[in-house]
Amino acid sequence: MRISDLSTQSGIPVPTIKYYLREGLLPAGARTGPNQADYGEEHVHRLRLIRTLAGVGGLPLATIHDVLSALADPSLSVHAVLGVAHRGLGPRLTDGENLQELDEARIDVDRYLADLGWRVGAEAPARRELAAALAALRTLGWRVDARVFDRYARLAKRLAAWELEQTPADTDPTRVLEAVVVGTVVFESALVALRRLAQEHHSANRFGREGREIPSRTTGDP
Amino acid sequence: MRISDLSTQSGIPVPTIKYYLREGLLPAGARTGPNQADYGEEHVHRLRLIRTLAGVGGLPLATIHDVLSALADPSLSVHAVLGVAHRGLGPRLTDGENLQELDEARIDVDRYLADLGWRVGAEAPARRELAAALAALRTLGWRVDARVFDRYARLAKRLAAWELEQTPADTDPTRVLEAVVVGTVVFESALVALRRLAQEHHSANRFGREGREIPSRTTGDP
Repeated sequence: MRISDLSTQSGIPVPTIKYYLREGLLPAGARTGPNQADYGEEHVHRLRLIRTLAGVGGLPLATIHDVLSALADPSLSVHAVLGVAHRGLGPRLTDGENLQELDEARIDVDRYLADLGWRVGAEAPARRELAAALAALRTLGWRVDARVFDRYARLAKRLAAWELEQTPADTDPTRVLEAVVVGTVVFESALVALRRLAQEHHSANRFGREGREIPSRTTGDP
Repeated sequence: MRISDLSTQSGIPVPTIKYYLREGLLPAGARTGPNQADYGEEHVHRLRLIRTLAGVGGLPLATIHDVLSALADPSLSVHAVLGVAHRGLGPRLTDGENLQELDEARIDVDRYLADLGWRVGAEAPARRELAAALAALRTLGWRVDARVFDRYARLAKRLAAWELEQTPADTDPTRVLEAVVVGTVVFESALVALRRLAQEHHSANRFGREGREIPSRTTGDP
């Protein structure tokens, strides 16, 4: 198909497709003329994958480039490709944190993960994200150590074990890897959304119109 | 204390503090001279709260303004304030989704949540985030309906119930509300980080150097 058909099928504007081609995110089509190329279903799929990682996953294009390169590299294991995706996913941090608090929390988190016996790379960005969460609680006056995450850690461990068991059987290893990366990114978004929805549900039952109210506050709809 | 001391104690630069004062995110200090004001511990705490919501939580300043106003409004219930925080938290979406797919997924998600019996506002942004996740899977060729989220929904429901039980007892209702909002935001970040860490742990065991490998891929370190 021509680039205009590729745009129609994928819902992505032609200039954006040309940008992806220039940046190497999308492989070139088969050249059919001086200014024309032929694209196939694999290009449509690739565009959808880019949009999922960028949209639902919130990954920056540079990271998507790394993930797509890793997916195409037969020398990399599933574990390695997942590492590339994870490095791109986090952390969602801005500057302005109290760095001393963060350093202390980082030491606590590293010790905590070691105590849990988790095999995690020393440079995994999620370590810093967890440390930032701990530091944030402390600067707000919560007197907590890393065990405040115990329930979340148990739950995450069981969930991740189940998730990796779901790895699809497929003769094409690139498809398997893609499923692992998509699953990581898309179900993270789904899990976060479902937690908020469930909080709203329980909060409606507990604090809403018919529920118990905290002292000296009247009820109201959100 | 003076604004310079406030900056030292909070780790936030004076120009940023002045910006927060102008935007109404931080209440004015007690005026002590034509160009001078006195700030207290409550200002330090407020600055840390802003930084947590913006940094770990990733909330835009406009949303933080709404959350802080809601916290200070005694006519709003816990449920209402949580709603304001949730509306600010999501969804992390860019444009470029296939809108027809998204509309279909939205209908499926609304029906799914109704089947679950969850009491969730029709305009909760997490509905759209969940629909976007479902639409993303489908455009990538996964033949799934909303029940693909079953395990996540069960887990989120149990977790949220437990989380709301943890609401601290405090005579100051604003402190209680702050704890609920901070808990929602900070533990979301922690949960996401722990899921990634647990995935890396299980992936190391399953796909790493000593683990089982998928066909025609060699192992490698991430």
